Formats: sequence, structure tokens, C-alpha cells
Amino acid sequence: MVKVTILYPNSLESRFDVDYYLEKHMPRSIELLGAALKGVSVEIGMAKDLTGGLPPFAAICAFTCESLEAFLTAFAPHASELQGDMENYTDARAIVQVSELRIENVKYEHTQARS
Amino acid sequence: MVKVTILYPNSLESRFDVDYYLEKHMPRSIELLGAALKGVSVEIGMAKDLTGGLPPFAAICAFTCESLEAFLTAFAPHASELQGDMENYTDARAIVQVSELRIENVKYEHTQARS
Repeated sequence: MVKVTILYPNSLESRFDVDYYLEKHMPRSIELLGAALKGVSVEIGMAKDLTGGLPPFAAICAFTCESLEAFLTAFAPHASELQGDMENYTDARAIVQVSELRIENVKYEHTQARS
Repeated sequence: MVKVTILYPNSLESRFDVDYYLEKHMPRSIELLGAALKGVSVEIGMAKDLTGGLPPFAAICAFTCESLEAFLTAFAPHASELQGDMENYTDARAIVQVSELRIENVKYEHTQARS
């Protein structure tokens, strides 16, 4: 499995609209990526981090797919809509990471993505 | 649920021993964090990323716990062992992010953590 992770670096100058991101952008992303998406997680940086400072990232989102090719095939037709929507919730420059998922173990009941 | 994410930035100068990390450090971390750990994921940056360059992170690991306090209570007694072990696999300065898990949906069978 491959994980495509989108990280939004935090800074005092940047804005990030958590409500829009969670209620509009992510549900639409999940809908458009459709069956190619084998898993998704979205987390929001907590103001109180381990050192009491600003969390390094405002948000981190991860899409799990069978392969990078499967992700790109699903994403390409919707790239302009999804990338164009980013200005509606942030002016941060997102970092994109492509990883191979090597260990995963979840012991709790999953919350449902709103798609 | 709270996710504590440890990210290892990549650079041409830094080293990261994937085998040691996956076969020694992570299984030991999972063992020591024990029941406080409700989920764990570990992914390794792929050499071929979206732009063909070095992936931003050599590895990303995420621990899911009921709360930050639950994580810290489990981690504190083992902090010196786990942090001391880091030099055995990397000289990168890890980034630690504490997040609130807001969306999670996994549609595939989980691989098992080796603990």
C-alpha cells in the first residue's frame, strides 16, 4: 500500500480554515477519489503540543491507495478542482509525501469519513 | 483520539537505517507503549515521489492514543531508552506533531505490527 500524505506547515502568518477543510474539502476529495481510496486519515494540529508551542503542521491528511499509479489515475481528472479549492481554506504551501506503508495496526473502532 | 506523529526529514546528508527502524526500533516502541497504543502506522518515503525528487521525509510514524496524557504517561518511563535508540538508525532531527484525529476510514485489511 502507498500513502500520499499532504502536510500543511503552520506559521503565525498562515491561515487554515479547519471547518471548511473538514466539512467541504475533505469530503469532496474522498468522494472524487472514490474506489481508489483504500483509507483516509485527517488530523488537525493541537494548539497544545509537547513543548507548548505552535504545532509544526496545521493539518495532515493521508490517502492510502494500492499504488502511486492508482492514486494518480484517480486524482488527475480532479486535480484542478481539488487544487483550486485549496485557496478556500489555506494560504500555506502544502508538502506532499509519497510513502510505502510498512506497519499499520488499529485497535479501535474507526470513525466514519463523511463521504 | 490523539495522534502523535514523528517525522524524519530527509536530506542528502542525513542517514536513516530503514531496516533497523522497522525491525528493532518500532517493534520495541510498540511493545513499550503497550495498551496505551490504540493504533500505529509507519511509512517509509519512496525514492520516486510525485516530482521525481527526494521525498520530504525518510519516514513518518504515528501513534494513536486516547489522549496526549495517555501517550505521555506510557512514554515517560521509556523515554530515555527510545530516544537513546534513535542514534542507532538516524542522525536526522525528528519533528514531533500532536494532532486531534478527525477523520479516519480504512477499507483494507490491516497489516499486523510485529509486536
